[in-house]
Amino acid sequence: MRVVKKFGGSSVATIEKIKDIAKDISKNYKYGDEIVIVVSAMGKTTDELIKLAKEISETPDVRELDSLLSTGEQKSISLLSMALKEIGCKAISLTGAQAGIRTGGTHTKNKIESIKIDRIEKHLKDGKIVIVAGFQGVNEEGDITTLGRGGSDTSAVALAAALKCDCEIYTDVTGIYGVDPRVYKNAKKLEKISYEEMMEMANLGAGVMETRAVEIGKKYGVKIYVGQTLGVETGTYICDNSEIIEKKAVTGISINKNVIMVNLENFLAIPKNVAIIFNNLAKHSVNVDMISQNEVENVKGSIGFTCPLTDEHFLNKSLEEIAKEIPDIEVTKRTGVVKISLVGIGMISNFGVAAKVFEVLAEIDSAFYQCTTSEISISLIIKESDTIKVVEKLAEVFSI
Amino acid sequence: MRVVKKFGGSSVATIEKIKDIAKDISKNYKYGDEIVIVVSAMGKTTDELIKLAKEISETPDVRELDSLLSTGEQKSISLLSMALKEIGCKAISLTGAQAGIRTGGTHTKNKIESIKIDRIEKHLKDGKIVIVAGFQGVNEEGDITTLGRGGSDTSAVALAAALKCDCEIYTDVTGIYGVDPRVYKNAKKLEKISYEEMMEMANLGAGVMETRAVEIGKKYGVKIYVGQTLGVETGTYICDNSEIIEKKAVTGISINKNVIMVNLENFLAIPKNVAIIFNNLAKHSVNVDMISQNEVENVKGSIGFTCPLTDEHFLNKSLEEIAKEIPDIEVTKRTGVVKISLVGIGMISNFGVAAKVFEVLAEIDSAFYQCTTSEISISLIIKESDTIKVVEKLAEVFSI
Repeated sequence: MRVVKKFGGSSVATIEKIKDIAKDISKNYKYGDEIVIVVSAMGKTTDELIKLAKEISETPDVRELDSLLSTGEQKSISLLSMALKEIGCKAISLTGAQAGIRTGGTHTKNKIESIKIDRIEKHLKDGKIVIVAGFQGVNEEGDITTLGRGGSDTSAVALAAALKCDCEIYTDVTGIYGVDPRVYKNAKKLEKISYEEMMEMANLGAGVMETRAVEIGKKYGVKIYVGQTLGVETGTYICDNSEIIEKKAVTGISINKNVIMVNLENFLAIPKNVAIIFNNLAKHSVNVDMISQNEVENVKGSIGFTCPLTDEHFLNKSLEEIAKEIPDIEVTKRTGVVKISLVGIGMISNFGVAAKVFEVLAEIDSAFYQCTTSEISISLIIKESDTIKVVEKLAEVFSI
Repeated sequence: MRVVKKFGGSSVATIEKIKDIAKDISKNYKYGDEIVIVVSAMGKTTDELIKLAKEISETPDVRELDSLLSTGEQKSISLLSMALKEIGCKAISLTGAQAGIRTGGTHTKNKIESIKIDRIEKHLKDGKIVIVAGFQGVNEEGDITTLGRGGSDTSAVALAAALKCDCEIYTDVTGIYGVDPRVYKNAKKLEKISYEEMMEMANLGAGVMETRAVEIGKKYGVKIYVGQTLGVETGTYICDNSEIIEKKAVTGISINKNVIMVNLENFLAIPKNVAIIFNNLAKHSVNVDMISQNEVENVKGSIGFTCPLTDEHFLNKSLEEIAKEIPDIEVTKRTGVVKISLVGIGMISNFGVAAKVFEVLAEIDSAFYQCTTSEISISLIIKESDTIKVVEKLAEVFSI
């Protein structure tokens, strides 16, 4: 069997851990599997390199930053390859460039354009374990590029797509849960989750896997397994919707505490004013998320939106400027709230999920301040103090 | 003016030092010079990487070791390029591969085969300072290779040869001295030294520059300047013999304390026995240096040789085996000795240098145990306790 296995930074943080992983990989090697390994930089290496760069410049040159950061993964692939050879496996390490990973785009958040797999195929044929540096590639000019946050996941899934095999992502959690187990103790680990649901979950802040990696998985039909490094428990498969027989109405609930809610009232909610508001927010790089507006033509109306709490500084600057441009506008900010999102591909065919949600909230007497929906998700802003109560009840009702 | 400047590991050991060097380079940049910089890895980085590899394997795979070690220089070139851009210079970093440095040979002690300078020329034309990773190149397979000890000097001089310009080596000493100033306080810094003399000095243990770099300089006529990083004093030029008008009989004296002397007596010094001795020493990787033999045909004779004191462990093993193969052989080892070498291209035309040396030794009543000569050098083994007395007198007599 051919497989791509990816190990994150915490899994290769020390020489001891690298040796342990090598031993684990060697088991599959002895079964005769064709193995491609993708690794991240050791532990906090990337953060330390960024710190060095920031000591030189507040805004370090992005081409040089990419070249600097890529050394982290080059270090870990060499060490893992040595460790595999030391225990009698044939192995070879390849940088992004050597592995044929071509990128095209802007430095520090590049995109994989193509993978020329000839060299990897040759080494696999020679019976070698191939260890590829995650997070990096090379552009047309021969310059080293990096793929941005979560880039090693993307490297792994893209390699699996090119090599036409499954992808296993090893991390420090035992799999993907319907609800964050730190919030809801009885949370169940999912056996399977569809690409679409996983993408919604990732976007909504579940943070287990990078959305781009899941997108590539969906596009090329790569089955992705997420499990714990050296763990014994079975993890979670991210796969096509069609492989999930029993489609639940709600697969998971994500909880995002990094939220601030803003309400603007007592102004003419005409397009011109709405444009002023959102242009100004964009100018200050405030990441606007949920927007709700009750349209009342030519009458003083109201508009609400949420943004990350971590953007508050920029938000305040923007709100000051907006108040100058639209006199008499009244601003209310609400903190101490969370965004709860229910995600489920089954929602498409299960009507009445929203109704059931509102019923639950009424039953436990919990208010919500805002609500938005997509085809496979419902998001609500509720009081932070109600989080556990609401999540537990919803998890119970939807059996997550 | 076009120039290649090389900075060693201690010159880029910290972010502060990198910033200081950037400032210094920017002065030449403002004069309109075309500048190529070669840097080593920061401080002790290479040693630390080797330590990591040794934690995995006593004999780490050499291909992977090269890939691992090359990250050190990649890190320092990126940081120096950032620092130059931060103060308004146009700059770009290039790995060995990106700079077109092609090698062919064995990993960890590779040789530069050719340099494709197109990319460097292009960047110079664009007014950029080009920062090249020293110590590394890329072989035909696209694998990263390193050049072994002192490899960054070699990279710098080879680049200067390809770019048809001078090479400046910046280090922590102020230049090349006729005698090590730590031994002889009145030692004078040389204004110029010929390639040949520098090679003898390097081989004999002066340790300022790698012999290979000087060899390349000689072959391609690259004028090499050796001076102190950020220093104000003028350093030393390594140049062609013809540029040195006043050829001194003795240019420098090198002192090597890493010496042990062995005398073998009471055996038939016939070729068969001599072969047994030196084959056995080679088998144990003992680095035999000076050899002296008083040939007495078919009579019991004697043979003497020196080797590094650091090889003593292997030497002892070898001597035990030799004693078994050649019964009755008598072995005397002498420690507490040093090797003094007088080097000077002027020796070729100045007869009587050896005579003068022996005269000096007689005058100060200092014995010597062994003596060998080459066309431009005389080496002597003397008592370690006599070192200062002998060196001071020789320096005085030959005005070094």
